[in-house]
Amino acid sequence: MPRAAVILLSGGLDSAVCLACARRDGFRPLALSFDYGQRHRHELAAAARVARALNVSEHRTIALDLRAVGGSALTAAIDVPKHALGKGEAIPVTYVPARNMTFLSLAVGYAEVAGAADIYIGVNALDYSGYPDCRPEFIESFERTARLATKAGARGGGFNVRAPLVRMSKGEIIRLGLSLGVDFSLTHSCYDPAVRNGETLACGACDSCLLRRRGFEEAGVPDPAGYAL
Amino acid sequence: MPRAAVILLSGGLDSAVCLACARRDGFRPLALSFDYGQRHRHELAAAARVARALNVSEHRTIALDLRAVGGSALTAAIDVPKHALGKGEAIPVTYVPARNMTFLSLAVGYAEVAGAADIYIGVNALDYSGYPDCRPEFIESFERTARLATKAGARGGGFNVRAPLVRMSKGEIIRLGLSLGVDFSLTHSCYDPAVRNGETLACGACDSCLLRRRGFEEAGVPDPAGYAL
Repeated sequence: MPRAAVILLSGGLDSAVCLACARRDGFRPLALSFDYGQRHRHELAAAARVARALNVSEHRTIALDLRAVGGSALTAAIDVPKHALGKGEAIPVTYVPARNMTFLSLAVGYAEVAGAADIYIGVNALDYSGYPDCRPEFIESFERTARLATKAGARGGGFNVRAPLVRMSKGEIIRLGLSLGVDFSLTHSCYDPAVRNGETLACGACDSCLLRRRGFEEAGVPDPAGYAL
Repeated sequence: MPRAAVILLSGGLDSAVCLACARRDGFRPLALSFDYGQRHRHELAAAARVARALNVSEHRTIALDLRAVGGSALTAAIDVPKHALGKGEAIPVTYVPARNMTFLSLAVGYAEVAGAADIYIGVNALDYSGYPDCRPEFIESFERTARLATKAGARGGGFNVRAPLVRMSKGEIIRLGLSLGVDFSLTHSCYDPAVRNGETLACGACDSCLLRRRGFEEAGVPDPAGYAL
């Protein structure tokens, strides 16, 4: 049986491509999602669709109420900024404090129980919102800490945190996904979607929508997402 | 107003002393507990009692279902070993994969939102169960990772993870707690308690009970906990 790898699967474009990369790399993918009180909770439905389409071995969702921490436009009563990408503060209010460190820690726990040594995360330090926990130096430091934190590490093992998209542009990520058979119509990127006539529509103007739209333009392929504007 | 510090408060003996240390050190304590699917969930009632008695500014509890990860006698259908302290494997089955890394990550998120730079954790690397995430080298590596993961770190700040008990014996911790006015009758240590005639009794034989009993013996003071045997 191929070795297992844990893939952090949000239901967005990047994590779907990441899951396809894990398959390409020969791993048996174990998908992990978080129901963390996010405003765009319907991304979990996208995660389930993507997991099914890419035929994962297992898909777990951990409930974790980050609203108890707050401090982010994604988990508290703070408006999601529109048409603000690259403007204003370097780190926008959609930053969720310590989110990737928390999610990766939980992925390490899951990997340890499953006997997996590899974790995929779809962070990107090029076409991104400026979140500090998307940078390679964070990932490297996390690997060291995870080795020290765990039974696997104490026994001489450890965890490889793989971030295959970290230095790619959004257009390159989309082209890679298409070459690996990712169906982007299953993915969801918007931070602040609206439901209209029973259909979930992306806002088209939050950072995540702007990055996605720009990426499809760069890739020269149509974006299958439905936009409210 | 004094500076705030986040204290990880389980409701056990060590975290209660840790909270008292944060007060001694001049901080305004913000207590953080986790409802993580632990078998000994009633420790949360102890955490609430301790937080009240030590007059914290704020006490938050984050719900996080670690049963979705499993792999531990504390969160899965695995028996809690009795009279096994120091026997068998170096790291016992009560180890919860990546728990302290996860809890500290969430504490960092809370600290960041609250504008706090200090986090207290009651880990101990002397009278302990052999958990890797209680060692000083883990704590130091975690601080570096937290700096890289956060907005606070990107702005030149960071987080001090204070583990004032890390090199103390259990007896010393108890004596320190008594000198700081900790009422140990409010704390709860047992991993596998039983309810008898409406009263929660500690089992007296799990690792955590054995360490506690030994500590009170060493300190030469009576243990106020009620034991089933």
